[in-house]
Amino acid sequence: MRIVLDLMGGDQAPDAPIEGASTALARDPDLEVAFVGQAQALAAARAATKNAGGRVVLVEAAEVIGNDEQPALAVRRKKDSSMVVGLQCVKSGEGDAFVSCGSTGALLSAGLFAFGRVPGVRRPALGSVFPNMSEPGKTWFMLDIGANVDATAEDLRTYAVLGSVYSRMVLGVPNPSVALLNIGIEAQKGNEIARQAFDLLKSTPGLSFAGNVEARDILSGPVDVVVCDAFVGNILLKGMEGLLMQLAAAIRRELRSGGPGVQLGGALTKSALSRALRIMDYREYGGAPLFGVNGPCIKCHGSSNGTAVAGGIQVATEFAGKGVLAAMAGALGVGTARDVGKGPGGDAAQG
Amino acid sequence: MRIVLDLMGGDQAPDAPIEGASTALARDPDLEVAFVGQAQALAAARAATKNAGGRVVLVEAAEVIGNDEQPALAVRRKKDSSMVVGLQCVKSGEGDAFVSCGSTGALLSAGLFAFGRVPGVRRPALGSVFPNMSEPGKTWFMLDIGANVDATAEDLRTYAVLGSVYSRMVLGVPNPSVALLNIGIEAQKGNEIARQAFDLLKSTPGLSFAGNVEARDILSGPVDVVVCDAFVGNILLKGMEGLLMQLAAAIRRELRSGGPGVQLGGALTKSALSRALRIMDYREYGGAPLFGVNGPCIKCHGSSNGTAVAGGIQVATEFAGKGVLAAMAGALGVGTARDVGKGPGGDAAQG
Repeated sequence: MRIVLDLMGGDQAPDAPIEGASTALARDPDLEVAFVGQAQALAAARAATKNAGGRVVLVEAAEVIGNDEQPALAVRRKKDSSMVVGLQCVKSGEGDAFVSCGSTGALLSAGLFAFGRVPGVRRPALGSVFPNMSEPGKTWFMLDIGANVDATAEDLRTYAVLGSVYSRMVLGVPNPSVALLNIGIEAQKGNEIARQAFDLLKSTPGLSFAGNVEARDILSGPVDVVVCDAFVGNILLKGMEGLLMQLAAAIRRELRSGGPGVQLGGALTKSALSRALRIMDYREYGGAPLFGVNGPCIKCHGSSNGTAVAGGIQVATEFAGKGVLAAMAGALGVGTARDVGKGPGGDAAQG
Repeated sequence: MRIVLDLMGGDQAPDAPIEGASTALARDPDLEVAFVGQAQALAAARAATKNAGGRVVLVEAAEVIGNDEQPALAVRRKKDSSMVVGLQCVKSGEGDAFVSCGSTGALLSAGLFAFGRVPGVRRPALGSVFPNMSEPGKTWFMLDIGANVDATAEDLRTYAVLGSVYSRMVLGVPNPSVALLNIGIEAQKGNEIARQAFDLLKSTPGLSFAGNVEARDILSGPVDVVVCDAFVGNILLKGMEGLLMQLAAAIRRELRSGGPGVQLGGALTKSALSRALRIMDYREYGGAPLFGVNGPCIKCHGSSNGTAVAGGIQVATEFAGKGVLAAMAGALGVGTARDVGKGPGGDAAQG
């Protein structure tokens, strides 16, 4: 298994990708990593992984796609970017999966260009693992958190199926329950698309549909997979991030402005409070594939640290090694997808 | 000014309405309150407000509309409910505004039935004041948080105008800035409706449109009014409520499972932490009118305490006393609405 890793993407590039790859290489003796990036980053990656010897490949790419660039345009123009070159490596069979902490939009655009869609998918989605806040150690999964802001009911059904396959094959949940994010649990709740999606999900064979779930409840992980529109999903996540930031600030303010007893208490509880406030930190959960892209493209959060990148590499290994793409196409009931990176090169079918 | 108060709505009925009315009556010597509810609740209300003498009126209504009832059906069937009777009092001129902590759906349904829509409004919206989490004491306003889950871009424009008038006339913000809740601040961000709404808002005369705002940022109050679809708004709020609950539990867990030092620290910081965790408690902000209903119907949160009900009565007084409905219709540019409760009885125009 050879994972192609983008050295240039993310807030902590190239350090986090290098650290993540080192960890992953040490953990899995069968793993190979192809680093893609600029010369200096490649040199650093080589130096940091010299113990891995022949299991490391360096691929130079002179350009970098930034987070502020218009994705489709950047992908078209920067043919020698780490992202475009890295995906090409996978497409040509020199690697089994691509992992990047770079621009989501660019990865979607480049991934679709390289591999097309899984048959039966209209538009791709982004997902993420989240911690179960009531039972530390457990997790749940949500998609779409940032790709398709104009999802139809049929798109939501597609995401439910893809998320279910992913939860079972990669996250190891035997019979994943799937729920629709909604404003109430009753069948008739929600906007028009949610109501239509409820009916579609209810009648989808092979899906353990658990009905609607409210945003208030998802954090305690009552279901394994939560499905939503990217507009709603993104606003919900960003709102929670904002609330956590504000709350941390409010706690600091209260503790600082208290009397000597409160300040002593603040000092004594500092690390316990920090741990509690990190409880929703989903950026550490390693990354997830671009759902619906017919090739193994794993997106890690832009602020991923080394641990998160190592997790992303692990996800990529499972995703590519277990034939997840073929299973997804099968579950969508529209024939079998070719698992890109496992067969010969060439263009994948556009769904 | 006579406020008609629903004694039977909300989790703490009739105690919270009675307490709220007592506070409001003591604060404002010109205020009159008409309590509407069942005999026993009326007796309690009378006993608690005997100092207010002739400023209290009792109106008996034998039925109660519960939160679990189908709103339109309940309103049609329960003609002698506190909600229907109370609204009728306002419509017939026996009171200037109606305040209720009861079922939102029923109040919307009964309010629309009694007063119709403000001319130019397609569907009503719900709003709420929220605390500015960075600057304690300051607030901001958001609508729609729970009425119209299938809002069009034109609906969002309507809400922006209504929210702006409300912020200026009732909340006292001189030139309120209004922003659209979106997944990014750039003009082209968002789903199709958000993009259309952005263009409409940009070209609305008299509106201080501040562009898009992200959910991450709204809590620090960068704008005075945030506009969104009720589906998104409701999911965002419930998600934040859920996160706060989970976080409070996580903090308790961490403090309890720590060593003696951490436990001492927990005891010393207990009230400071509780204060910090209450920072987003918008239920205490008194309530807001049903935006777009052509009569003064003030909805308080179902879990309102006495302070919140007193705040709701204050809102009702301002709303009815300042001709806000007429100003709203004027700002929508479709003529002048009659301020219901200020003129003679009779049916209001259906918008």
